[in-house]
Amino acid sequence: MTYCVAVKLDSGLVMASDSRTHAGVDHVSSFRKMTVFERAGERVLVLLSSGNLAITQGVVGFLEQRRRDGAPEGLMTANSMFAAASVLGDALRQVQQRDAPYLAQSNIDSSASFLFGGQIVGEPPRLFHIYAEGNFIEATPETPFFQIGETKYAKPILDRVITSRLTLTEAAKCVLLSIDSAMRSNLSVGPPIDLLCYERDALSVGMHRRIAESDGYLDAIREQWGRGLLRVFAELPDPYWEHGS
Amino acid sequence: MTYCVAVKLDSGLVMASDSRTHAGVDHVSSFRKMTVFERAGERVLVLLSSGNLAITQGVVGFLEQRRRDGAPEGLMTANSMFAAASVLGDALRQVQQRDAPYLAQSNIDSSASFLFGGQIVGEPPRLFHIYAEGNFIEATPETPFFQIGETKYAKPILDRVITSRLTLTEAAKCVLLSIDSAMRSNLSVGPPIDLLCYERDALSVGMHRRIAESDGYLDAIREQWGRGLLRVFAELPDPYWEHGS
Repeated sequence: MTYCVAVKLDSGLVMASDSRTHAGVDHVSSFRKMTVFERAGERVLVLLSSGNLAITQGVVGFLEQRRRDGAPEGLMTANSMFAAASVLGDALRQVQQRDAPYLAQSNIDSSASFLFGGQIVGEPPRLFHIYAEGNFIEATPETPFFQIGETKYAKPILDRVITSRLTLTEAAKCVLLSIDSAMRSNLSVGPPIDLLCYERDALSVGMHRRIAESDGYLDAIREQWGRGLLRVFAELPDPYWEHGS
Repeated sequence: MTYCVAVKLDSGLVMASDSRTHAGVDHVSSFRKMTVFERAGERVLVLLSSGNLAITQGVVGFLEQRRRDGAPEGLMTANSMFAAASVLGDALRQVQQRDAPYLAQSNIDSSASFLFGGQIVGEPPRLFHIYAEGNFIEATPETPFFQIGETKYAKPILDRVITSRLTLTEAAKCVLLSIDSAMRSNLSVGPPIDLLCYERDALSVGMHRRIAESDGYLDAIREQWGRGLLRVFAELPDPYWEHGS
């Protein structure tokens, strides 16, 4: 399993992923799930992937190969984020078409999905969730964040805190706490964490951090958050009862 | 979907369930999912159910019918919680045997599971999770709580707060917050909430509350918790970046 989250804010995008990959309990590895396509001043595209690793790596490899071969349609030539999301969905479908029947023979799940955010000059930043079937939806001010992978443990904190008016820094903190919740409750989500903040109209990646297993900042906010929660909990009034003591 | 949670403490048991049942979005109903079997001074058994409603109601009906018919083995005659859990697992298997093939013909999921806690005189309180297959596991001091139904959204707060040394009141507060998290993040979990606290060796139900859609206490702790979380969040230090602003 894995966990990826992306938030579209008025001020830009915050995107983060863990690095845990597993195929059964005896095979747990760490792979980078964040891929950045950048041409400074023109476009920044960030891809977070979840699902079958051979498929998600295959999609990135396929897109890079097409670029090398000079194919006219690609992530670096698309003139809008919508067009780029379509390129990505089509690439996913092609890789699935090629590999899925062979995986199905061994009852291996070939599904994969992506969070895809960024900005192409002339447009505001946009964020898409590319489904396993290659179709996609776009984030709106009312639904400013998407998650893929092991999403449920991490959703309550996002539901409480995220709005599109947060600053990049506020959203980054919330995203880290959300990943920490997923890691606490599910062993299949694990560090290092890739965290990227994209500032609207910068058209280059300004802020990126790779957060390792033992990281001073993550340990500090995790500890302060845990203590703070217990303090708030202790201050809650006691329930009263319909009958009994 | 539904959400049930049960905690075994040194001081007793806390058990709670929501009441939302649904079969497709156009059919959302409220059914009680908590059943109490009590003979004051001798035994208190509390059953929380999740899954196919006809199956879970069928299990309770089947057990009541057997009792009415004077069957020797039943929840009210079992001489230990282990024996009672076996009676329950067997009843689930019999109801499944009777109904599941007919449901399968219409591709209807017949699975159901239970949380089963209580005390029979001569034993300490015990808590079991009865799986859909009728087998079961028991809570231990290291794993003091079980959840069934829509469990994931509600697990982080339990992971952070619950230990077997909490008081009944502390655990009850935590359980309510856990249900509130499930309700916030999933429409298929909904009020009223049944909340029961059983004090070790009382051998009768002391504290029970049915918490309605609009409940002063739940609203108060929900509001105080939400505000407290945002306060703790605002106090967290800002991240620093590897490069950029």
